[in-house]
Amino acid sequence: MTERTSPHAAIIGLGSMGIGMACSIAKSGIRTTGYDVIPASINKFVENGGLAGNNTAQTANDADILVIVVVNAAQTDEVLFGAGGAAQAMNSGGVIISCATMSPEDACRLAQKSADLGLHYVDAPISGGASKAASGQLTIMASGTEEAFKRARPVLDAMAGTVYELGDRAGIGSSFKMVNQLLAGVHIAAACEAITFAKKLGLDLPTVYKVITASAGNSWMFENRIPHVLEGDYEPRSAIGIFTKDLGIINDMGRKEKFPLNMSATALQMFIATAANGMEQDDDSSVARMIANLTGIELPASKG
Amino acid sequence: MTERTSPHAAIIGLGSMGIGMACSIAKSGIRTTGYDVIPASINKFVENGGLAGNNTAQTANDADILVIVVVNAAQTDEVLFGAGGAAQAMNSGGVIISCATMSPEDACRLAQKSADLGLHYVDAPISGGASKAASGQLTIMASGTEEAFKRARPVLDAMAGTVYELGDRAGIGSSFKMVNQLLAGVHIAAACEAITFAKKLGLDLPTVYKVITASAGNSWMFENRIPHVLEGDYEPRSAIGIFTKDLGIINDMGRKEKFPLNMSATALQMFIATAANGMEQDDDSSVARMIANLTGIELPASKG
Repeated sequence: MTERTSPHAAIIGLGSMGIGMACSIAKSGIRTTGYDVIPASINKFVENGGLAGNNTAQTANDADILVIVVVNAAQTDEVLFGAGGAAQAMNSGGVIISCATMSPEDACRLAQKSADLGLHYVDAPISGGASKAASGQLTIMASGTEEAFKRARPVLDAMAGTVYELGDRAGIGSSFKMVNQLLAGVHIAAACEAITFAKKLGLDLPTVYKVITASAGNSWMFENRIPHVLEGDYEPRSAIGIFTKDLGIINDMGRKEKFPLNMSATALQMFIATAANGMEQDDDSSVARMIANLTGIELPASKG
Repeated sequence: MTERTSPHAAIIGLGSMGIGMACSIAKSGIRTTGYDVIPASINKFVENGGLAGNNTAQTANDADILVIVVVNAAQTDEVLFGAGGAAQAMNSGGVIISCATMSPEDACRLAQKSADLGLHYVDAPISGGASKAASGQLTIMASGTEEAFKRARPVLDAMAGTVYELGDRAGIGSSFKMVNQLLAGVHIAAACEAITFAKKLGLDLPTVYKVITASAGNSWMFENRIPHVLEGDYEPRSAIGIFTKDLGIINDMGRKEKFPLNMSATALQMFIATAANGMEQDDDSSVARMIANLTGIELPASKG
């Protein structure tokens, strides 16, 4: 690793989360190169003080810290070790910060492949949404060696309001993230079941929202997602497809571990039904619309 | 109804909720007679300023306001209109405050039977637990006519921190309560699934609690019940049997309304499995112990 006063950073994946994270890193004064398959995203990053990468390998070239914010383990693997070849292009002794939600097993595998190239790896799934990414206030559920954390520190601090250091090896961060996603997915499905059932019972939905958010039936997801239903606004803040993916990983893990996950399995089927009903790209609160379509109840229409 | 400056109250059912409610009413200065099938509960009430009833009819005799806090609709019906005969014994024009969790249909039926005797009826399911009952800070999800609310007011105010007035007829309060119970039951089952899965993944459970309660996966129930699991303390604050009952009512309602309730149906099966596993009288967080028993993972043991 080239010894410098300030490390060079690179980030691959400038989607709704990645662009905010990239800008937060650049804003902290770290020299940062960014790349995405969509050129407009790169342009947006350049307007915010970043450097434009031409492809994944060139972006990672001379980087001491490489952040990967793509959709899943397969894309992360391809960018790092496939034709993308980003890992090979990094400075020796550099650190990879891997942010995609993936199974702990995949995280361990990618960390091992990184170690084989003399690179460090922080298993660093993120949460908090696009607005917290933009303000550098993400929550990161991270694990990795002490050395990996030490090298990643300036970039982790630039991106996150809270960095949980959850263990000394890859896989632990991803395990925490999957437990969180299990609950988040089940709670969205439950919130949508409850609000549509309330409608079926003839209740006034804004009053249901007010009473439940002050009662023992409340969840972070009920409080956050049900306003989308009340406003009839299904523009994706987070899409149905995220949860068919994440609950899919969780169900795969349960099958592999021989661990029954009844609630997660049922929730997955409700997200799959919603995707089947044509709403895979819509907001994840669309589970309520799927139930409404199925049962013939009428939910609030968009005021837009 | 006898016109008095201050109405007379009676309360039937001095269990973990009822005793606190009874004491709160007496403490407010209202003359209150209480009855329970367990004499020790009546004695406790007398020590706290209440009057002892000998049976349900004698307890309700000369009452302007009668609070019923028994287990379900069948018990409420029996106390009021069966051999118990409490409704007949009340002062003419009096009001019944019915607090048991029941289906909206049952609430409507009991309200009609009350009206047939010239009595008013507030459909008034409660939430908040024994400690809030004792401090007069319950939440009541209430519905009924304006006249019923007017007559019930002194006692409602004595028992509750918040009285939601949700509609002008019986059934609406119970509908809100069932929506809340749907979410509460699903969230307990999900919390227990998540914490046992976290253990299977080898995670440190107190850290899981800390991270999840600060994340999007949080729920009121996760935050409230998982400490019981972490402490290995399954003394019933609220028992498994409450949710086999309440989710049972919800599933019956869904079948009757032809409304699919996938999450609730799955959660009900998990509570039934826990009851089948010998824990019907234990704390509802025992769903986690059922999963642990099934899968062979080890949860924290009681320190007691």
